[in-house]
Amino acid sequence: MHIDWLHGPVAEINSQSFAAAQQRQNTLTKPLGSLGRLEQLAIMLAAMQGVETPAIDQVHISVFAADHGIAEEGVSAFPQSVTVEMIHNFSRGGAAISVLAKQLGADLEVINLGTVLAHEDLPQVKVQAIAPGTANFSQQAAMSDSQLAEALQAGADAAMRAQQSVAQLFIGGEMGIANTTSATALACALLDTPAEQLAGPGTGLDKAGVKHKADVINKSIERHRPEMTSVLKILSHLGGFEIAALTGAYIKCAQQGTCILVDGFITTVAAMVAVKLNPEVKRWMLFSHASAEPGHKKLLDALAVEPILHLSMRLGEGSGAAMALPVLRLACELHNNMATFAEAGVSSKD
Amino acid sequence: MHIDWLHGPVAEINSQSFAAAQQRQNTLTKPLGSLGRLEQLAIMLAAMQGVETPAIDQVHISVFAADHGIAEEGVSAFPQSVTVEMIHNFSRGGAAISVLAKQLGADLEVINLGTVLAHEDLPQVKVQAIAPGTANFSQQAAMSDSQLAEALQAGADAAMRAQQSVAQLFIGGEMGIANTTSATALACALLDTPAEQLAGPGTGLDKAGVKHKADVINKSIERHRPEMTSVLKILSHLGGFEIAALTGAYIKCAQQGTCILVDGFITTVAAMVAVKLNPEVKRWMLFSHASAEPGHKKLLDALAVEPILHLSMRLGEGSGAAMALPVLRLACELHNNMATFAEAGVSSKD
Repeated sequence: MHIDWLHGPVAEINSQSFAAAQQRQNTLTKPLGSLGRLEQLAIMLAAMQGVETPAIDQVHISVFAADHGIAEEGVSAFPQSVTVEMIHNFSRGGAAISVLAKQLGADLEVINLGTVLAHEDLPQVKVQAIAPGTANFSQQAAMSDSQLAEALQAGADAAMRAQQSVAQLFIGGEMGIANTTSATALACALLDTPAEQLAGPGTGLDKAGVKHKADVINKSIERHRPEMTSVLKILSHLGGFEIAALTGAYIKCAQQGTCILVDGFITTVAAMVAVKLNPEVKRWMLFSHASAEPGHKKLLDALAVEPILHLSMRLGEGSGAAMALPVLRLACELHNNMATFAEAGVSSKD
Repeated sequence: MHIDWLHGPVAEINSQSFAAAQQRQNTLTKPLGSLGRLEQLAIMLAAMQGVETPAIDQVHISVFAADHGIAEEGVSAFPQSVTVEMIHNFSRGGAAISVLAKQLGADLEVINLGTVLAHEDLPQVKVQAIAPGTANFSQQAAMSDSQLAEALQAGADAAMRAQQSVAQLFIGGEMGIANTTSATALACALLDTPAEQLAGPGTGLDKAGVKHKADVINKSIERHRPEMTSVLKILSHLGGFEIAALTGAYIKCAQQGTCILVDGFITTVAAMVAVKLNPEVKRWMLFSHASAEPGHKKLLDALAVEPILHLSMRLGEGSGAAMALPVLRLACELHNNMATFAEAGVSSKD
């Protein structure tokens, strides 16, 4: 499997649409700038869509699920069986992202990239198993190069399905017991930061649990340091299948010109990997929310991006991105449907 | 006209529903607390509605419009004719709140409490004119006691219309050229703070304009200080008809048990007046967003409340509250429709 596609050029942002949308915002019946972030969001969406008046009718949500060998080290508050149990829950409509996707009229698919437990065929769930979870990265590399290529491609496949369904927005989510440990390890390696500064409670570790998690991460990074000579090597040594898939999905979305709405901590790690591999990918990304997971703010700062919502969520699954979707949709409605000063006969500023 | 009703008791918050909703949140298939603020918002709505599973189907938005004598002092970036021009724009569906109300399926009414210019009968606009704007409060009290009582009652009337339409949520908005000057003066008097610390650009003053606005406010407060011996006297000397109406609406909502979603800077001033008059009113209030108007944060801090959104909006009209409505609705959807651990067969924390 080849991975050269990761470095291919991203789609152009339409600068004429950007200018036209900016011009339009400035004529709407409101004090200049008074819609705050909604103005810039509408303008960016317009530029991405190559239109003056953008819309987000069709949304594609891909939740990537996988297990993590590092769970053996006791780094999660929940047993590993929960990964597959939650896949069932996604399929039956009982998980947070299921409820949100239904309410928002978004397409939801779940991609199982490899879990320790098996499950029968389930509606809305695609099985593209790479292995029954990654290897325990405190002992060895989490995945081989070919497994990494497969995970990246699985993400690209999801991005292409989004494009086939004419989605104007792609949301990636994740599920995998112990995946904040993998994500935190990646963040530490990419930002060259000790784990104490980034590790958090994930699904609910206590203080001693967080310390243990940080120790596991620091030791693992020391072990793999000589071999982690590139971003892709960092990803294969410390990553998870679902994190690699998110990375691949984001890069493919940017290449095909699909706007990306990044979720929380784990997806932002994947976003950072994507941006390190192909910096222009960032132009196609919006960041939905600031997670309560403590490492998230450092990642957002390192990416120099500002999230839309601050709701102290830390659930994953793409749920924070789904919460931000109405903000984007209403930003478009205001942009498209407010009257201009001329249309409304309203006097402008003195 | 009597105003004793302002001090009447507010409706009870249902503590059994609060406990039942809290219990429900703790059984849903997610790490405890991982929905962040959405959990507490759903629980509060449940307690206000006296149910375990709350809903916000019906929303009533009242935008109160009025003119301000203080506009004579050159404290706004826009001419006073804009108040009535914007009333036309509300009625025709071209204003921000019109677009949002339509998209959110909320009932929108505009109440003209007194403008300098007249207008013909307009759809969705109710005229309850108290006077053609308030008096210039740099020279005399903004309104008489009877005008104040009338404005408070106009707000209560709107709250009662909301109840008649079985609204589960009340949003108050405002429009009135120069009304950030009135609101800032009220905030300065209530918080005993010099205007330099609270005055902001409003619809777009430059630095010199903001300084002039602060000077006007400081001098006006000095002038009226001997007479401003109560919260109501502060309101009548420095307030606007729409701000007094918002105060009345909030108090009546709390008394009848309708949840209030407070908008931005000006409405938060009205909320503070309401809470100073009747402290228990605060239990029925949610605060929708942090405005870019600099005084807003100080007001929110003084009220010890945390807004839901941080979008740097500063438009008024109830637009920030409307933006927060989807967050509340999705919080309810998650609360009501996510599966419990038992229903989904998901293992709980180790």
